[in-house]
Amino acid sequence: MALYQVTIAYDGTEFKGFQRQKNGRTVQAELESALRMLNWQERSLLSAGRTDSGVHAEGQVVAFQLDWPHSVEQLKKAMNGLLPSDIGVQAVSQADIGFHPRFAAMARDYRYQIYFSDSPNPLKERFHWRVWPKLEIEILQRGCRLFEGKHDFRAFGKAPDEDSPTQRTIQSADWKIDPAGNEAFFRIRAKAFLYHMVRRIVYVLVRAGQMRIDLDDIQACIEKQSELPAGLAPAKGLILEQIIY
Amino acid sequence: MALYQVTIAYDGTEFKGFQRQKNGRTVQAELESALRMLNWQERSLLSAGRTDSGVHAEGQVVAFQLDWPHSVEQLKKAMNGLLPSDIGVQAVSQADIGFHPRFAAMARDYRYQIYFSDSPNPLKERFHWRVWPKLEIEILQRGCRLFEGKHDFRAFGKAPDEDSPTQRTIQSADWKIDPAGNEAFFRIRAKAFLYHMVRRIVYVLVRAGQMRIDLDDIQACIEKQSELPAGLAPAKGLILEQIIY
Repeated sequence: MALYQVTIAYDGTEFKGFQRQKNGRTVQAELESALRMLNWQERSLLSAGRTDSGVHAEGQVVAFQLDWPHSVEQLKKAMNGLLPSDIGVQAVSQADIGFHPRFAAMARDYRYQIYFSDSPNPLKERFHWRVWPKLEIEILQRGCRLFEGKHDFRAFGKAPDEDSPTQRTIQSADWKIDPAGNEAFFRIRAKAFLYHMVRRIVYVLVRAGQMRIDLDDIQACIEKQSELPAGLAPAKGLILEQIIY
Repeated sequence: MALYQVTIAYDGTEFKGFQRQKNGRTVQAELESALRMLNWQERSLLSAGRTDSGVHAEGQVVAFQLDWPHSVEQLKKAMNGLLPSDIGVQAVSQADIGFHPRFAAMARDYRYQIYFSDSPNPLKERFHWRVWPKLEIEILQRGCRLFEGKHDFRAFGKAPDEDSPTQRTIQSADWKIDPAGNEAFFRIRAKAFLYHMVRRIVYVLVRAGQMRIDLDDIQACIEKQSELPAGLAPAKGLILEQIIY
């Protein structure tokens, strides 16, 4: 019996999120059902965190104990053979006893993808939010500076429990634009995020880029928890890029 | 009544190709059924060319006559409202009488997308061919030089009719690799291609990159129509990028 650490990618489009639930197809349930075919005995696998319904992952991390007499490469192949095509195992390794993918994480990287067009492009719709007209990335980039560091983010998301703290530390936040100027990518790194926090930050930054929210109002919201217009960037543009240990 | 030139993008995954047929969902049939709701009266629309089952487009061009009393912007909105989510109208303009999107084309650009990984990544599977191990792009790039110019491509595809000529002129062919080295993009431009020709060229170049076909054998095949191993790169990696008029 050994503890395995497995990096997985998934297209979140057809999932009701990561976490197993009574109704609805979930990534966790698909993983567990594949593992049971390999004679996995635990009740639940461990994960680095939940992702919402419709959110994608390139580098989600899960862990489980398994009696597997073959190599980690063979385990990767077996899992990929048993999983549906919208989940793919990217890497498998043995972990030290006691490894927990959630508590051991030093940082989480999320990427948010936007494309600029006045009409939907079916080749981009699955993994991007469509925004029109084009944005002044300079404003969004200046907005990032407001979020970096330790702040009370209660206006930007919910803590797991009502009484738990809403302070989080953003290690970095940045926008990149593709050379043709048709796509923009937001990358944000923190040890942990509040529920909905990345999509909420993207939403207010995009609204700032559209001159519908003022950067000063965002700053007041971060410093004094004043109110900002409600709204979330769509789930389909968000990708859990990697977990750093 | 005016003639409209319309640029469309589609995700080819769920289509049996562009051209209308008795059985199977096609892009042409979906476009025509949307146009009929706008009181379009012709029997068929014109297109710049067919794409195979599973092939995508960013810049397919179609043309049709329509009695439309509003602006081209309004026509774009109406069509996008009526079309399914895997087809998107990108641009609409009025064309000169007699414009035919196929015969007026000066060149066609196709792009082929590859990613390098030893396991499937669901975020890339839809629009890329997965290849492993990584390829020496230098070899593929040298292979491109063999195809450029005018050649008899009978070993690389079929002409529309059995007796029609199989000479074609490749204006340019190039590979680009992303900075991280995880994806490769092939771009090829010609006035016209034979049926299956781009996927066949990609296939033999990739096999050359894997040292399974020799560049000398490809050259002999182009010059003397000698035989090469059969095979096609998968449709899902191919995108009709643009038609140049």
